[in-house]
Amino acid sequence: MTYRAFINFLCLGNRAVTILNRSSGRLLHIQMGIRNIASQAESGFNPAKVAVVTKMTRYEFEQQRYRFSELSEEDLKQLLALKGSSYLGLLERHNIHTRNVEHIVESLQKEGMEVRVVKRGQYDEETVRWADAIISAGGDGTMLLVASKVFNKDQPVLGVNTDPERSEGHLCLPVRYTHAFPEALQKLRRGQFRWQWRQRIRLHLEGTGINPTPVNLHEQQLSLEQHNQAHRITLMEAQSSKACSLSRPYLLPVRGLNEIFIGESLSSRVKYKSFKPHLTLSLHRASYYEISVDDGPWEKQKSSGLSICTGTGSKAWSYNINKLVEQAVGEVLRIGKAQMGLDIPLSQELIEKVTDEYNKSLVFGPEEGRMIFSIREPIVNRVFSSSRQRGFANRVCVRSRCWDACMVVDGGTSFEFNDGAIATITMNEEDQLRTVLLEN
Amino acid sequence: MTYRAFINFLCLGNRAVTILNRSSGRLLHIQMGIRNIASQAESGFNPAKVAVVTKMTRYEFEQQRYRFSELSEEDLKQLLALKGSSYLGLLERHNIHTRNVEHIVESLQKEGMEVRVVKRGQYDEETVRWADAIISAGGDGTMLLVASKVFNKDQPVLGVNTDPERSEGHLCLPVRYTHAFPEALQKLRRGQFRWQWRQRIRLHLEGTGINPTPVNLHEQQLSLEQHNQAHRITLMEAQSSKACSLSRPYLLPVRGLNEIFIGESLSSRVKYKSFKPHLTLSLHRASYYEISVDDGPWEKQKSSGLSICTGTGSKAWSYNINKLVEQAVGEVLRIGKAQMGLDIPLSQELIEKVTDEYNKSLVFGPEEGRMIFSIREPIVNRVFSSSRQRGFANRVCVRSRCWDACMVVDGGTSFEFNDGAIATITMNEEDQLRTVLLEN
Repeated sequence: MTYRAFINFLCLGNRAVTILNRSSGRLLHIQMGIRNIASQAESGFNPAKVAVVTKMTRYEFEQQRYRFSELSEEDLKQLLALKGSSYLGLLERHNIHTRNVEHIVESLQKEGMEVRVVKRGQYDEETVRWADAIISAGGDGTMLLVASKVFNKDQPVLGVNTDPERSEGHLCLPVRYTHAFPEALQKLRRGQFRWQWRQRIRLHLEGTGINPTPVNLHEQQLSLEQHNQAHRITLMEAQSSKACSLSRPYLLPVRGLNEIFIGESLSSRVKYKSFKPHLTLSLHRASYYEISVDDGPWEKQKSSGLSICTGTGSKAWSYNINKLVEQAVGEVLRIGKAQMGLDIPLSQELIEKVTDEYNKSLVFGPEEGRMIFSIREPIVNRVFSSSRQRGFANRVCVRSRCWDACMVVDGGTSFEFNDGAIATITMNEEDQLRTVLLEN
Repeated sequence: MTYRAFINFLCLGNRAVTILNRSSGRLLHIQMGIRNIASQAESGFNPAKVAVVTKMTRYEFEQQRYRFSELSEEDLKQLLALKGSSYLGLLERHNIHTRNVEHIVESLQKEGMEVRVVKRGQYDEETVRWADAIISAGGDGTMLLVASKVFNKDQPVLGVNTDPERSEGHLCLPVRYTHAFPEALQKLRRGQFRWQWRQRIRLHLEGTGINPTPVNLHEQQLSLEQHNQAHRITLMEAQSSKACSLSRPYLLPVRGLNEIFIGESLSSRVKYKSFKPHLTLSLHRASYYEISVDDGPWEKQKSSGLSICTGTGSKAWSYNINKLVEQAVGEVLRIGKAQMGLDIPLSQELIEKVTDEYNKSLVFGPEEGRMIFSIREPIVNRVFSSSRQRGFANRVCVRSRCWDACMVVDGGTSFEFNDGAIATITMNEEDQLRTVLLEN
């Protein structure tokens, strides 16, 4: 039995394992990434059928926007010209993206793979069932969309950043593979990669007046009428089956790869726009809710919203909510220094170091089976208090006291979350997303 | 000539004036509030016609919400019951508000004033023209609405907090006057008060593809069709009068009492919902823009949005954007301490003090003729940098690079602010709002 096969045998997903090397008799104590090592022993990755899901470029968006306003193509061109040179830029970025997609597709076809190119609007469960692997061709947003329909942790997902100059691409392969995709395929074939499992969040909803109908923000043409219809039906269901709708927690058919965000109202703009429309301006209306972390005591809170993120998401929006800038850190240190009566100089270098260290502490690994909850812009006054603005959790329960709020998953799907609804936010190993880690 | 009359004579709205006291021959050099002192010399405030603008309670909102869904009153009662006991609470708050409004109205009528009670939805320019004084009966939101239609700095506005247990009421009279309004009226009559002038923000818009049509979020029944109509007309106007729409800055018919917020997309949810709807989830899409402060160099930025607030607004949303919690301050001090190699204990008391001092520095006076700009959740990477996250300014220019953004004034009125549009944000003494400062 080879060393590699031996390790394979021992791997049970544990984070630390002791291995007896039979030939040398040495004991190796290995921490972390044991699963990854085991994966390197696999024969390589060679899918027969690959779906390539492409993003919508801003250029395409602008075209569609004005088509909705019933302008002719000529009017459109004039309008684009009126808006100035940035539109030539949009076209350029559109072409760059398109060429990069072609590069990916050709590379896959050269390897003898069957390729299906699917625009984001057409991406569905059938695509996921058909494909042996799914490639997201866009930015992080496209990766989130692709992940949103994958529920099988054996289904591999790869992200390729098709506009590296403009897109961060945290969830994508290193930027060099965008123009050298055959190299990436070669490494995959040879097993010169690791699987990166990314833990995801699952949601249970219960309580009074819940509406488990998701508003899928990626779907087009969802009309006001359809929204109202869904809402009316739910009301009637709620009335007729009081016992059912209240007692059993309902597992929502979504998984959060980055985060769940709970806050006052966005979706209601469509439904309730004719009543107190300023309410629907989510920016301003504070979110009221009660929160219990890891089965701790319930705490009433008021804030701009609540974010619960994964390790993957800890580099995304949650990071921006919690990150401090040097200006603020410098000011805190200055005030602290004065309050303590110290006479030590405060160099810009020190302020930078403290800022970096603080911000680094906000990030954790995608494979960790826990979440970070963050309260965005907490409001503290007579009624509402907040013991911690941020912390780790394995389980977060939130009871809505909102007028017109929703829970948003990865910025892509939202659920009503109004007064009386209770969400239970947890992680389950089954929900992991299987992505690829290629060395740079 | 009495001393008081003499001061009255000298008052020209200056912030500092030297007064010769004729009887004693003494020179008094008076800073600040000279206008206020002059006002105390006034004969007292005794309007003949008073408009009372009332808020919409949450109870009323919920009623309207379900009426839209075409449920009967009985269905509604059942649904409210289904949602649990919080609805009894809503009714209770509604009744408290209603009683407090009655108290105000009766008190005014007893003084022989002609009173017009106007629901927020019916409040208009005609009300403002008719009234000698306007009372906002609600919370801060209602005050913002009342102020939004007052453009004359001689028109006095008073705020009465009709639900002190639930509403902060920063812009309202001290809470005790809610149940003792005759006392307030007495003090006003006797001149035992000061005028508090609150500086406000004005906005000029220019550039390509601008749409000066405000989306008034306080208006009801604004349909998708009306939005599109307005947009189509503007497009055609823009095409036909290229020279006009591009060159002259257009002064918007609004004034910001709290703040102007610029950020990606809210209003677009109505217009462009069928295209890339996830874009309209303003939470997630970063706002791109360029900013120049006090005619300084233009800086490209990416963030969750940009807030420019007045002294009045520095206690409101801007405060929550910039405020730090003890958890963060404590962590910064701990890291700083370690980096500096200090061995001083860090008490909770010290952390509290530093936090309080930091947060206090975010607030400034309503009468100050300058603004604070704040970048919400700045995103810093290869392309975008940010020299300061917050600072004072007399003039802020912002050039939109957004897909689908808007400028929101006091959370109540929004304007499209897309790629190509330039906003100039300033203050002008003419725009001040005249409110009342009553001792507690």
